[in-house]
This record gives sequence, structure tokens and C-alpha cells, in this order.
Amino acid sequence: MTTEAFDERDAALSELLGIRSSIDNIDAALIHLLAERFKFTQQVGRLKAQHGLPPSDPEREKRQIARLRALAEDAHLDPAFAEKWFNFVVAEVIQHHEELAGNGVAGAAAASGGGAGGAPAS
Amino acid sequence: MTTEAFDERDAALSELLGIRSSIDNIDAALIHLLAERFKFTQQVGRLKAQHGLPPSDPEREKRQIARLRALAEDAHLDPAFAEKWFNFVVAEVIQHHEELAGNGVAGAAAASGGGAGGAPAS
Repeated sequence: MTTEAFDERDAALSELLGIRSSIDNIDAALIHLLAERFKFTQQVGRLKAQHGLPPSDPEREKRQIARLRALAEDAHLDPAFAEKWFNFVVAEVIQHHEELAGNGVAGAAAASGGGAGGAPAS
Repeated sequence: MTTEAFDERDAALSELLGIRSSIDNIDAALIHLLAERFKFTQQVGRLKAQHGLPPSDPEREKRQIARLRALAEDAHLDPAFAEKWFNFVVAEVIQHHEELAGNGVAGAAAASGGGAGGAPAS
């Protein structure tokens, strides 16, 4: 490897470290936003259980997916990826609520999410 | 249903709409951050391919997961959920790059991601 090639590789490594630092910042923001989202979906679960509101709202979920796909397109993110990501988060939230219900931890909120298919996420 | 119960249900519905509006705002932020993250991982892929840097860095990935679990814990998000979510995003990014490579769209960046197991996400 020539000195020039070595320098170029060094510069690339340095650039890589910078990009990784940005990815780390973005990931931290994503985790904190997910934590906030989770708090809101727990509120939704509690509210629905307390007031006898229908646990599931498929129309709401359809609108959410359509909106997120449009936002993704505008942001140059693959809309199919955005939809898959949304479904993953919703499924995880439901599963988490079910686990809490199984452990008897979450009370009414978890009970409202159990098996209802999308309720706590909407 | 008494008038009082009806009013309470109305108040609950109104509160639900407010929470949903917050969830929608958070989801929009999440989608935009994911779009930015994706742009950065594409840069990483290109850089690694151009400069013959190792495509995969399992140590980096381990550090990322440990960090995100700690951040999740501080933010009162289930750390297991955070790790699963991270793995989902990484897997999707890799799959997306592979698809682009298959279509001949992404060139060097996609090629560096193809089958390397984690490279474009780190």
C-alpha cells in the first residue's frame, strides 16, 4: 500500500468515526422517542380499559400506516420499510403488554391490550 | 348509561384523541430520524467499499447494543425491547441494501452490505 493510499484510508476511517457518531446520536434520539411513545400507548390502554372504549381500531391503524408511508416517501425512506417498522413496533407493544398482564404487573392497561390486536398502539 | 357516565366517556374520547395526536407527532419524528439514519448507513456502506475497510464490525455492534440498552433503561423503556428493535432495524437495513444490489441500483454501497452481516448499520 502506498503512503497516499494509506492516508486516504486514514481519512476514510476518520470520516467513518464521524458518521458513526451521528448514527449513535440518532439512535439515542430514537430510543428516547420510543420510550415516550410507549408511555403514550400505555395511557391509551388504561383509558380504553377504564371507559369501556373499543380496544381495537383498525381504521385508525390504516390511516396511521398510510400517513407514515407518505411521510417516509417525502423523507426518501422506503415506504415499505416504514410500514414494516410500524407493524414491528405495534406488535412489540402488544406483546409487551401481554407479558405484563401475564405477570400481573400492568393491571387494566395491560388487560386491555391483551390479544386485542393493535389497541394499545393506536 | 347515565348522563354522567356519558360525559365521562366523552371526556375519555377527547383525551384519547389528544394522546393519539401526540403518538402521531412522535411517529413522524421517528420516521424522519430513521430516514436520516438510513442516509448515514448508506454513507458507511459506500465508504467501506471504496476504501477496502472491513465490512463488518461485531465489536461496534456489541457496544451499540449495550449503549442502547442503558439508554432505554434510563428512559424507562424495556431494554430487551430496545435491543430487539435495534436488531430489527439493522436487519432491515442490510436486507434493503441487498435488494438494491440485486436490482443493480446501489453499486458499491450495496455490494459492501450484501451478506456481510451488520456492516451497513454500524
